[in-house]
Amino acid sequence: MTEKDRKIYIVDTTLRDGEQTAGVVFANREKIQIAKMLDEIGVDEIEAGTPVMGGDEKEAITAIAKLGLNARIMAWNRAVIKDIQESLRCGVGAVAISIATSDMHIKDKLHSTREEVLEKMVKAVEYAKKEGVYVSANAEDASRSDEEYLIQFIKAAKQAGADRIRYCDTVGIMTPLEIYERIKRIRQAVDIDIEMHTHDDFGMATANAITGVSAGATHVGVTVNGLGERAGNAALEEVVMALKHLLGFDMKQNTRKFREICEYVAKASGRDLPSWKAIVGTSIFTHESGIHADGAIKNPKTYEVFDPDDVGLTRRFVIGKHSGTASIKKKLSEYNINIDDGLANIILESVRKTSVELKRPLTDAELLNLYYEHVNKDIEHAI
Amino acid sequence: MTEKDRKIYIVDTTLRDGEQTAGVVFANREKIQIAKMLDEIGVDEIEAGTPVMGGDEKEAITAIAKLGLNARIMAWNRAVIKDIQESLRCGVGAVAISIATSDMHIKDKLHSTREEVLEKMVKAVEYAKKEGVYVSANAEDASRSDEEYLIQFIKAAKQAGADRIRYCDTVGIMTPLEIYERIKRIRQAVDIDIEMHTHDDFGMATANAITGVSAGATHVGVTVNGLGERAGNAALEEVVMALKHLLGFDMKQNTRKFREICEYVAKASGRDLPSWKAIVGTSIFTHESGIHADGAIKNPKTYEVFDPDDVGLTRRFVIGKHSGTASIKKKLSEYNINIDDGLANIILESVRKTSVELKRPLTDAELLNLYYEHVNKDIEHAI
Repeated sequence: MTEKDRKIYIVDTTLRDGEQTAGVVFANREKIQIAKMLDEIGVDEIEAGTPVMGGDEKEAITAIAKLGLNARIMAWNRAVIKDIQESLRCGVGAVAISIATSDMHIKDKLHSTREEVLEKMVKAVEYAKKEGVYVSANAEDASRSDEEYLIQFIKAAKQAGADRIRYCDTVGIMTPLEIYERIKRIRQAVDIDIEMHTHDDFGMATANAITGVSAGATHVGVTVNGLGERAGNAALEEVVMALKHLLGFDMKQNTRKFREICEYVAKASGRDLPSWKAIVGTSIFTHESGIHADGAIKNPKTYEVFDPDDVGLTRRFVIGKHSGTASIKKKLSEYNINIDDGLANIILESVRKTSVELKRPLTDAELLNLYYEHVNKDIEHAI
Repeated sequence: MTEKDRKIYIVDTTLRDGEQTAGVVFANREKIQIAKMLDEIGVDEIEAGTPVMGGDEKEAITAIAKLGLNARIMAWNRAVIKDIQESLRCGVGAVAISIATSDMHIKDKLHSTREEVLEKMVKAVEYAKKEGVYVSANAEDASRSDEEYLIQFIKAAKQAGADRIRYCDTVGIMTPLEIYERIKRIRQAVDIDIEMHTHDDFGMATANAITGVSAGATHVGVTVNGLGERAGNAALEEVVMALKHLLGFDMKQNTRKFREICEYVAKASGRDLPSWKAIVGTSIFTHESGIHADGAIKNPKTYEVFDPDDVGLTRRFVIGKHSGTASIKKKLSEYNINIDDGLANIILESVRKTSVELKRPLTDAELLNLYYEHVNKDIEHAI
């Protein structure tokens, strides 16, 4: 088995860390729909929410657990027995048990000690394992934790029965080179599955997540559109495509449904999906500038890495200020108008002027108008 | 001198690669304003556009070159003498000369050969150096180029007089670990300044850019908001903050103006700035969830890496479905209402129900209404 034959598990937390985002509230109907779509895509695990919040939250988790999806359903918990009891009542097959391991969080937030934190986690894991569920032991703020203590914490969690550890870069301060060394060292110290849970505060959530995989992590925590606290989490669509196309892992997810789920979550979260969103934005396969459009017409691979179809998008060429003659000729030919380079250059000049005037690209109708203006001018001249 | 004392140069290409984005057109007035703002922030170089396009584009570059900014003004060129002549006429102090070095681009786009490409670059660089300007030799699609050929190309450009090389990850396919090794090898093979020019197709532009710096690159190409072809380029605001806070470089840029310029470029480019945009989004310092808000109230550093002031933002606490009692008590105390945990828990339950009903967080007025409803109910009971 080569390194690339390892299975990498995708853990989606759109419904937990995603909804936890300030300002975002999903209706239960939306949560169930998102869970179904995630399952169709083929994520391995769905973190469905936090049962101890009660009310609607608990109802949604229970309903999702009852759907009979292929994905394992996980619920989030503090390292508190009451939380885990609430999770078990929802009928989930897995629990994430979370406690902070950095001294700053332990002291300033929890008013606790390293020893107490370790003890609470061990008790919670033992309780959950006794109840027969899969357990992820989450080290919150792991990236700001003392490494020796963190390894001690992971060893204790493992001994208590934890099936994996979630390494949380809670405030998104890791760099890829740093995370690589850290995950390597943890893997060397403890033989346990590791989930990367990264945040995008410096725009590096996806890079840190996949670099963790290169260092030996087995699971990646993601959300649709990278929805999550502050700048968000690593995006499902970016992580899966990067693991597949850049690192060569055999990812089984149905990526063709990415655009659809990203649009749905955008709507449900009340956050428009930017046209430039990596992987799924509508601009990703839109070419305007002369050199790029020319290249993409001759061979799409010059400026595209995968086919638009692969993520549920379509390729578009727009005519605007940065266009060149190749795009103009191509666009007009779609209307059965075939022109030579001389005329294309004349029209290009008008296109540029018009685009600057309008502060946007031209519609097809506007381009056709420019073409007919020139042709009519020539006819008048001839007369 | 330690590694961290190296000066890292910030090269902003919002006006060139940024405007080249499909659908984006800046008015000349906006370009001049953006150049001035970039200069106030303290970027080292501004790539102002592509003179050979003529018309408005050339006028804007000429006007920017005349502003007398501290930043060096650069113009973009193909490896074509005519392009460079147009740049010189604009009065810029630096030219970027670009040609593709990958076999796919050379063959399918340029219909050329490796030898011809090398020759064209050498001639163009020699011409520009004879005219006395600073020269960046850009290897387009460097990340898909044969490394032996790429190093040969860089050596030839250097010998022709190029002051630096721009390593373009044109379609954004690099991973941080890969880019680290590649930049290291180039640095070992040739002693020349290297600029990282990265794209965000897999969401890794910033990570790849700063990892290139760790491997020895001296310059980073960026755009405001990460504006650029397809998913965009590495974002100015992310790169500067990451180099400063995560890698410890002494960056001189005035980061307090980041939010202002990001808002301006968002408006000028017709692309709304998402509230979750890393570094400058309004949600970055907005706390709702119970655990996060509680931590941020006790010590902001538990969930924040730098102060909101540092980038021109402010901290906010919102009351919604995921709130805990600490936020409720804090928010009401701002209205001189001090309540105990018992009442906070009762109000919290109403807050959760209302937030699910409204599918959004509550305004302060809505929270106050819930509070008075409960108090009045108690009073009625008492009566």
